[in-house]
Amino acid sequence: MIRIGIVGATGYAGEELTRLLFSHPDAKITHLVSRSFAGKRLSEVYANYAPFNELLLEDLQIDTLAKDTDVVFTALPHGQSLQIVPQLIDAGVKVIDLSGDFRYDDAQTYETWYGIHHDQPSLLAEAVYGLPELYAEKIKKSRIVANPGCYTTASILALYPLLKEGLIQKDGIVIDAKSGITGAGRKEALPYAFCEADESFKAYGVTTHRHTSEIEQELSHAADSPVALCFTPHLLPVKRGILATCYTNLTPGTTAAAIAQAYEKMYKNKPFTTVLPHTVLPELKMVNGSNHCMIGYRIDPRLNRLIVVSCIDNLIKGAAGQAVHNMNLMFDLPETEGLPLVAWYL
Amino acid sequence: MIRIGIVGATGYAGEELTRLLFSHPDAKITHLVSRSFAGKRLSEVYANYAPFNELLLEDLQIDTLAKDTDVVFTALPHGQSLQIVPQLIDAGVKVIDLSGDFRYDDAQTYETWYGIHHDQPSLLAEAVYGLPELYAEKIKKSRIVANPGCYTTASILALYPLLKEGLIQKDGIVIDAKSGITGAGRKEALPYAFCEADESFKAYGVTTHRHTSEIEQELSHAADSPVALCFTPHLLPVKRGILATCYTNLTPGTTAAAIAQAYEKMYKNKPFTTVLPHTVLPELKMVNGSNHCMIGYRIDPRLNRLIVVSCIDNLIKGAAGQAVHNMNLMFDLPETEGLPLVAWYL
Amino acid sequence: MIRIGIVGATGYAGEELTRLLFSHPDAKITHLVSRSFAGKRLSEVYANYAPFNELLLEDLQIDTLAKDTDVVFTALPHGQSLQIVPQLIDAGVKVIDLSGDFRYDDAQTYETWYGIHHDQPSLLAEAVYGLPELYAEKIKKSRIVANPGCYTTASILALYPLLKEGLIQKDGIVIDAKSGITGAGRKEALPYAFCEADESFKAYGVTTHRHTSEIEQELSHAADSPVALCFTPHLLPVKRGILATCYTNLTPGTTAAAIAQAYEKMYKNKPFTTVLPHTVLPELKMVNGSNHCMIGYRIDPRLNRLIVVSCIDNLIKGAAGQAVHNMNLMFDLPETEGLPLVAWYL
Amino acid sequence: MIRIGIVGATGYAGEELTRLLFSHPDAKITHLVSRSFAGKRLSEVYANYAPFNELLLEDLQIDTLAKDTDVVFTALPHGQSLQIVPQLIDAGVKVIDLSGDFRYDDAQTYETWYGIHHDQPSLLAEAVYGLPELYAEKIKKSRIVANPGCYTTASILALYPLLKEGLIQKDGIVIDAKSGITGAGRKEALPYAFCEADESFKAYGVTTHRHTSEIEQELSHAADSPVALCFTPHLLPVKRGILATCYTNLTPGTTAAAIAQAYEKMYKNKPFTTVLPHTVLPELKMVNGSNHCMIGYRIDPRLNRLIVVSCIDNLIKGAAGQAVHNMNLMFDLPETEGLPLVAWYL
Repeated sequence: MIRIGIVGATGYAGEELTRLLFSHPDAKITHLVSRSFAGKRLSEVYANYAPFNELLLEDLQIDTLAKDTDVVFTALPHGQSLQIVPQLIDAGVKVIDLSGDFRYDDAQTYETWYGIHHDQPSLLAEAVYGLPELYAEKIKKSRIVANPGCYTTASILALYPLLKEGLIQKDGIVIDAKSGITGAGRKEALPYAFCEADESFKAYGVTTHRHTSEIEQELSHAADSPVALCFTPHLLPVKRGILATCYTNLTPGTTAAAIAQAYEKMYKNKPFTTVLPHTVLPELKMVNGSNHCMIGYRIDPRLNRLIVVSCIDNLIKGAAGQAVHNMNLMFDLPETEGLPLVAWYL
Repeated sequence: MIRIGIVGATGYAGEELTRLLFSHPDAKITHLVSRSFAGKRLSEVYANYAPFNELLLEDLQIDTLAKDTDVVFTALPHGQSLQIVPQLIDAGVKVIDLSGDFRYDDAQTYETWYGIHHDQPSLLAEAVYGLPELYAEKIKKSRIVANPGCYTTASILALYPLLKEGLIQKDGIVIDAKSGITGAGRKEALPYAFCEADESFKAYGVTTHRHTSEIEQELSHAADSPVALCFTPHLLPVKRGILATCYTNLTPGTTAAAIAQAYEKMYKNKPFTTVLPHTVLPELKMVNGSNHCMIGYRIDPRLNRLIVVSCIDNLIKGAAGQAVHNMNLMFDLPETEGLPLVAWYL
Repeated sequence: MIRIGIVGATGYAGEELTRLLFSHPDAKITHLVSRSFAGKRLSEVYANYAPFNELLLEDLQIDTLAKDTDVVFTALPHGQSLQIVPQLIDAGVKVIDLSGDFRYDDAQTYETWYGIHHDQPSLLAEAVYGLPELYAEKIKKSRIVANPGCYTTASILALYPLLKEGLIQKDGIVIDAKSGITGAGRKEALPYAFCEADESFKAYGVTTHRHTSEIEQELSHAADSPVALCFTPHLLPVKRGILATCYTNLTPGTTAAAIAQAYEKMYKNKPFTTVLPHTVLPELKMVNGSNHCMIGYRIDPRLNRLIVVSCIDNLIKGAAGQAVHNMNLMFDLPETEGLPLVAWYL
Repeated sequence: MIRIGIVGATGYAGEELTRLLFSHPDAKITHLVSRSFAGKRLSEVYANYAPFNELLLEDLQIDTLAKDTDVVFTALPHGQSLQIVPQLIDAGVKVIDLSGDFRYDDAQTYETWYGIHHDQPSLLAEAVYGLPELYAEKIKKSRIVANPGCYTTASILALYPLLKEGLIQKDGIVIDAKSGITGAGRKEALPYAFCEADESFKAYGVTTHRHTSEIEQELSHAADSPVALCFTPHLLPVKRGILATCYTNLTPGTTAAAIAQAYEKMYKNKPFTTVLPHTVLPELKMVNGSNHCMIGYRIDPRLNRLIVVSCIDNLIKGAAGQAVHNMNLMFDLPETEGLPLVAWYL
């Protein structure tokens, strides 16, 4: 049994981690840490745990955590992981961090987009970007994994193989993404109140959203040259799910067959990424509740453009599920263990 | 033109009053009072007013209000109207109050259910309960109208004629009511966050909701003897609308025809209350967006029971629309003027 | 491995059965039967199965089914099970039937409420009512289990212990129930269209819903004398979940402690029914996605009434999950195996 | 009083027309035509009309219509208007047509995108494209107005002034649009069922949606040279509203001030189009329920791009409201008469 600690257990990603790991056949939750609710039962904060009153929330104790766990998931606001993760690593425990604090190749990009000074350059250099479709081998050997952002997971998986194979142009990419409201976290804020968000829809973070930089970093690796793109997130009146509509310009001569091949080459043995046949497009209900990413695409011959649509459940493939997937890799378990395979649909 | 002041203009009921009165052909809004947002434009608080940047929010100035208005709508939390309404009345302006502060026959009931001392017994005695279907003549002559609660409007209109005509028993009444979330007001509170309320449903205020006492007061008038009943509100994952399912025991010999007749007798010339034929039941989309109350009923011959279903838009017939209806009566305008007749359906 | 057949695999309950059993560690789906879609892949009907294109839909072949399965789940419209279940039983396979066809003690009640002649009286007599909280021992030994209705599961679990212990009166019970729209099945019908149901709410089947008779049957067993009650279903604008608000009259002397004790006595070792402390009430998000029933209650001392609120996920505890629970019992597996323990909350 | 006929009164756009015109101070509905429901009351098809049982649905009688009306609104499926509108015009009545049949400059484009032969070239030439912000003067004098599509209204109003003033490049435009489900009309089709669409989201009509051609036509007028663009519609799980996110490349030297000026120049005296200050973006609840279009924009200096966000209520500004606006122009009434000025917000 892998012994698990979750720090930040009462945010939405933390709760989802708890839910998945509670039923994981090879994992045992030993500590649930929540500063806001330390001393309470989890069921007092999330009443769906009423049948499991034994789950208690504690304050952060690095020593205890290190002693009783094999891996700690940190699901904290950006900036807080910077302070806590180094202590956990020092204490000898593996860490899967769900914040943006360890996702970047260089501290400068992080500081520009997050406005926070990065004082852990060596840990940053050591951390592996936890997208298993790209970096499974490195993840297996790492002691610190930076779990990707939700929008970034959907966007990178959609475009990486196409840039890598030179099938689309690296200029002029537009990603118009839409997310369920859990993406904003558990907050008492008016814009996320039911009566303000229900039956409405809006763009936000236009030209300034932090995930832009994370997507650009990975797609630049794919293209082997700097990619700058336009990323626009929107707030859907649903709880879960991200759909990214990606607009690209084809390079001359690119065919549907070449696109299918590029995806096949990259995702053929990947259990959680499925590419649909040309013109078939995914929708949220095909992925919500599962750890799947589904990708569809359609060529526009009139404009020589390619539109790629990518869907994930932001809380699972975009956060907690991908983190568990990373854990499975780090502890040499079957990749799919404990992860929901079939989306809810309903 | 009737000159209008709205105190508490930035709550949901206040915004709805503003929306209705802004387009009322015989009304002119002269003052919008909001303590929280005084000095801002209304469009900074409710962005749907962006095309009407001339609407400004002010602090409360009793003198100015009294000088520039013919009637003031007070849409304040319970207890606050107790302090402000007397000053407005003293200054010679008519008041339509949307709180519970002036709805009761006796201060004692108010104090028991609201836990607030009532220090205005004479104004309480003078105030007319603003349910036009019952008290139109008194409303026309009053200078202070206590606009009914939302649940109470739906419930009283459903059962008043039946108790008055002795068609149902006064004991054993159960009202199971369901309301949209605007009923909770504009609040940054977790239970009303989108991700907490969407796709969920719950009961609240079970056995203790204040509207119980208001319904009992009016139905006791109908029955001409004290009525005690069981009222249970629930929170629907919708923005607007109340549906009350009322369970009653028939008195011996009551027929569907007698029920139809009792309703006809009471609501025949009432423009905003429609009773459907036996067995046809209303639903929210038949009333939302309008000032209508729709009522349907079905006899259960197996149990000698009558089930009555009543629907209103909680923000319109249950608050702002009924208040405008009361204003129309007080100023001798056509009853339906400026009020939405046809529900949105979509 | 228990070999599984699902007949009616493309209805909502059938899909949910498929989803649960696909991940059940001791089950293997060998046949998915769908008359409407025979010859297609499941993923063509439910696109969330796109990663699992090996799942095929077939026409009904009793012989093949009997040969290749240990148990068949029938998720068919009422009346159709009457024709198919006897053939399966004759062919030697165990059956868990999700329709109303085998739920009744006597054919007469079925015929009255369903308007269908029951020509299988001996199988009806043999069938065990599949509510594990009441009949686990019988279920273990049966070859035909009649899986309960969704509303009935929520209602019976709420009131059975109270009637059995004589804590509430058997007369005057009102059950006001609200269900998500999946309860209506997968249909192209206007009342279930998004634009007709969203942001609306209505009662339906008032005084006539079939589940009335099923609830009365089981509660009459509890009371050991005939119970007639008033049951009113409503359609919530959500996909999943049932919340039943049950109104009862206390028998003299009943205390909150006695109520807690009655529930404890009955549900203490039942993994899927949780009773909350006095005055704490459940809501849909506490059960949706799980096989749990959660029950809360509150005494109204003013009226000497008891209000009980009961929640389930209609597709899981109210259909597919309870069916899998029954399978676990029939095949001597741990009761909770393959069943979701923690509700989604989000 | 302008006498009104509505043909296709029981579709969603037809119902919305009926709702608006029923309360229009200078209009009187004399005929509601519905082939599917002729002979019924409107309240039998849309129960929100229960208080107005006098509204009857009739079969189409051109002579009667022509005799009793001054203007007929045709809200029919594409292709059907082609047959009926010429008869109405011949009979001497003015027509506002809500289909795509008379929106094009040339029959060829219509035939290419709609796959229907256009046999009314002279009427097509005569018809005025009913976007009042562009063509008010022509609309005033016309006897046949082609009311624009919903997506097209939002898209054209967003980009027309920018192309006209040469502030954005005509190549590389991407319009990512999202619509509420009423846009699909009143249909018994599974993709629009509540349980299939709720909490989901998808793209559709990718590269092939007909509104592409209509947007291109008008934007080509603006640019005074052919524009080809990428338009992708999506289905939002809401009833009403369109939000279009438009991605453009700035021409060298374009400033935020120049953009503000271009909008101001075009929309300064237009009562239903409001452009927000730079970086303030609209959302659906700011327009739904009203006839307003709200536009916001944000420059991306990093990429020298401009993102424009445009919102309308698809049933009002995108259909029925714009049609009434056109009627007001044709009959020399105040532009805003009978039209909802303030969005619902709630």
